Amino acid sequence: MARIGVIGSEGRMGQALMAAITQAGHEYVGGVDKGGDVTALAAQCDALVDFSAPAALEDNLSAARTAGCALVIGTTGLEPAHHTHIDSAARQIAVLQTGNTSLGVTLLAHLVQEAAARLGTDWDIEIVEMHHRMKVDAPSGTALLLGEAAAKGRGVDLDHVKDSGRDGQTGARETGAIGFAALRGGTVAGDHSVILAGDEERITLTHNAENRMIFARGAVKAVEWLIGKNAGRYTMNDVLSL
Amino acid sequence: MARIGVIGSEGRMGQALMAAITQAGHEYVGGVDKGGDVTALAAQCDALVDFSAPAALEDNLSAARTAGCALVIGTTGLEPAHHTHIDSAARQIAVLQTGNTSLGVTLLAHLVQEAAARLGTDWDIEIVEMHHRMKVDAPSGTALLLGEAAAKGRGVDLDHVKDSGRDGQTGARETGAIGFAALRGGTVAGDHSVILAGDEERITLTHNAENRMIFARGAVKAVEWLIGKNAGRYTMNDVLSL
Amino acid sequence: MARIGVIGSEGRMGQALMAAITQAGHEYVGGVDKGGDVTALAAQCDALVDFSAPAALEDNLSAARTAGCALVIGTTGLEPAHHTHIDSAARQIAVLQTGNTSLGVTLLAHLVQEAAARLGTDWDIEIVEMHHRMKVDAPSGTALLLGEAAAKGRGVDLDHVKDSGRDGQTGARETGAIGFAALRGGTVAGDHSVILAGDEERITLTHNAENRMIFARGAVKAVEWLIGKNAGRYTMNDVLSL
Amino acid sequence: MARIGVIGSEGRMGQALMAAITQAGHEYVGGVDKGGDVTALAAQCDALVDFSAPAALEDNLSAARTAGCALVIGTTGLEPAHHTHIDSAARQIAVLQTGNTSLGVTLLAHLVQEAAARLGTDWDIEIVEMHHRMKVDAPSGTALLLGEAAAKGRGVDLDHVKDSGRDGQTGARETGAIGFAALRGGTVAGDHSVILAGDEERITLTHNAENRMIFARGAVKAVEWLIGKNAGRYTMNDVLSL
Repeated sequence: MARIGVIGSEGRMGQALMAAITQAGHEYVGGVDKGGDVTALAAQCDALVDFSAPAALEDNLSAARTAGCALVIGTTGLEPAHHTHIDSAARQIAVLQTGNTSLGVTLLAHLVQEAAARLGTDWDIEIVEMHHRMKVDAPSGTALLLGEAAAKGRGVDLDHVKDSGRDGQTGARETGAIGFAALRGGTVAGDHSVILAGDEERITLTHNAENRMIFARGAVKAVEWLIGKNAGRYTMNDVLSL
Repeated sequence: MARIGVIGSEGRMGQALMAAITQAGHEYVGGVDKGGDVTALAAQCDALVDFSAPAALEDNLSAARTAGCALVIGTTGLEPAHHTHIDSAARQIAVLQTGNTSLGVTLLAHLVQEAAARLGTDWDIEIVEMHHRMKVDAPSGTALLLGEAAAKGRGVDLDHVKDSGRDGQTGARETGAIGFAALRGGTVAGDHSVILAGDEERITLTHNAENRMIFARGAVKAVEWLIGKNAGRYTMNDVLSL
Repeated sequence: MARIGVIGSEGRMGQALMAAITQAGHEYVGGVDKGGDVTALAAQCDALVDFSAPAALEDNLSAARTAGCALVIGTTGLEPAHHTHIDSAARQIAVLQTGNTSLGVTLLAHLVQEAAARLGTDWDIEIVEMHHRMKVDAPSGTALLLGEAAAKGRGVDLDHVKDSGRDGQTGARETGAIGFAALRGGTVAGDHSVILAGDEERITLTHNAENRMIFARGAVKAVEWLIGKNAGRYTMNDVLSL
Repeated sequence: MARIGVIGSEGRMGQALMAAITQAGHEYVGGVDKGGDVTALAAQCDALVDFSAPAALEDNLSAARTAGCALVIGTTGLEPAHHTHIDSAARQIAVLQTGNTSLGVTLLAHLVQEAAARLGTDWDIEIVEMHHRMKVDAPSGTALLLGEAAAKGRGVDLDHVKDSGRDGQTGARETGAIGFAALRGGTVAGDHSVILAGDEERITLTHNAENRMIFARGAVKAVEWLIGKNAGRYTMNDVLSL
């Protein structure tokens, strides 16, 4: 049983984390939000989970460092400067930062990288995702994460090969392109498929999320894995020994 | 057994038609292409199948009319003037014109219209298709045909609700929109899915073509159905009694 | 706003119904379970929803009849004698009985019947479903309901053509068979696909339930539709004007 | 350009191999069937491909050994004694034996093993396949191959955990079971999906074959890779560096 605190506790993920921490048999020590005292919270915890905002990251890292507390960072929209702060803190504490805390998505990204590396550009890669009707951006962060994995497998930069929102007179597909398509509708929590289409055969690697609790549960798994580790910077891949 | 001729016989569909006509136990009388004598061919046939070009349509209709021969038109890219010519010929001969000769796609369009009509705009409609890497336009003609069916079911004009190639900061989905997404890769003959996404449930109506022979075989089914019918203009729906 | 009571209120569906009734803006009058006073509840309601047990049905019908109250019956496992009781009550009150209260499943069954009727036995029908790891029977009731729809579309009796749990040296598929396959795993609320496989093309009609609330919400839609209708026996098809 | 001969040249795979060898720019030296002179053929070839019958294997190995010719074996139904013969020949020549020559299936099996190893038995594994209506056995050899990969990833014996053809009152799913379901219909060349279903999320790994040429093309890729290798026994995994 670990003592866990949540930064960004009033957001949707914060609420889900509180439930997931308790369900997994840990102690939910408490949560803070904008203006709250992270240092006081850190002092009572084995680990903190941060799903707040990039602007708060430096203070959060500092509080965790002071308390010698492990830190899982799920905040999105980080800039290079934030990553420098994380690297710095990771010399003293165990920090795990990730754009996606789902174990399933983490594994899928690993499989996508492996498949892309083995099959080469004779196999075209397309990524299609579906999310609920309220989602305001496309493609999803997870689709981009999967695209990064495919690009890494091929040893290319995603920005150079990304082809999103195909429409109109597009011409034939460019060799090596990684295509993205976004579907929106209903209350879909998040479906992602990576298609590798070769000559007369196709491999499709798919993840379906039934709801958003998987992200909270994955974050708790990350906390469980992180507590007791040496100072350093880790990723979800480490949690799955990938 | 029917005597059947093909206009546009050297194209990919022309070749497939020759095979399909023979396989179905009919007599393949012959084929003509640009500059060929359609009138002479028509004189020897019970029915003609036209997969040539819009520019040839008026002459083809005239040849069929002179010979009293049934005519199946699968040529795409028709303008309003072409439809006027078809209507005129259909006063004297049986003419079936369609943008898609597959029985499966025809039925799917019917089911999509029915589903869209019953479920209303609480259910979001998205259409996603995948075709081989050489296809130069998006979305596919069949995807648009399915979108037309959905729009008809809802009593709206597709042009007013079409949302194709979603990408970037799109904002939340508009109620009543019909979304389109296009995937390209490998040698895929043609997969189409129409998704109706409601609150916490989804209906997905899918058609998979294994290869392009289904269009030739569907055209032969249309010919078989059309021969002996009264003068008039027909569609693939009539072949399936829809 | 309607006044609605629930019979079988402590079961999983009873709890979901309470939430769905309130969310839809209706008054949840109360619930009864084994041994409870249905007659007293009926007296205060415009409609009752019954998700209890077959053994209670006769009393429930009698209570609804006395109160002149509409009744939606979602109880499964009904025998011919129960249907006779329903028919009898339906001479005095509006009764809607169904094996599945989801609007999506109801529509899908209608589309399956239509497709099976149009395509004929050249197209093989297979039904595959997936449910959570705790489900104890296979195939699911909904899969059977979809199979009944397919059989009805073809004008045959499902019992004569059902082929479930294919395994081993099966020999070639029999023409006209309707196949069933059941997948079990995880926490899947319920996915069903009906595949119609022809020569070189396939139509797949799929329903995905994200969770079990869709059944409660569909039951509330049924109640809304049923209140104010003439005495008679109705089905979910009537709710969707199918 | 390699000189390649085919054993079992009149079978369906033999015909496909002839086309695939030529399309890939190699020389098709010739083919033999039951009673043909394999030794004479081997003498003219860099490599042989054997898709004949287990009974012929010993002679085929002997002919390849005499000629110092590489050998790809795709024959199915091998017994332990055959594997002993292969091991023996592999001390002198390069031999690649496999139950499935498709590159896509080979990669998929690798991904399945990896996923099963990482996720553990909290995630239920189900394998579903669809083939054409003429297939006489279930599940398919490829489905079993994928099941073996999953079992290997978990460190268990497939025979102990296999659960095929679920039907009737099955009870809840057993932890650690690997389920199989077989769909039959139309002209489907071969679709396989391995589903890993966890709590509220699912990973699905799918392979679709558009037709049987992929097996012939994969065999030619295996030949290209095998020629020039040292004596030894190899698998399709080696071709993909897995």
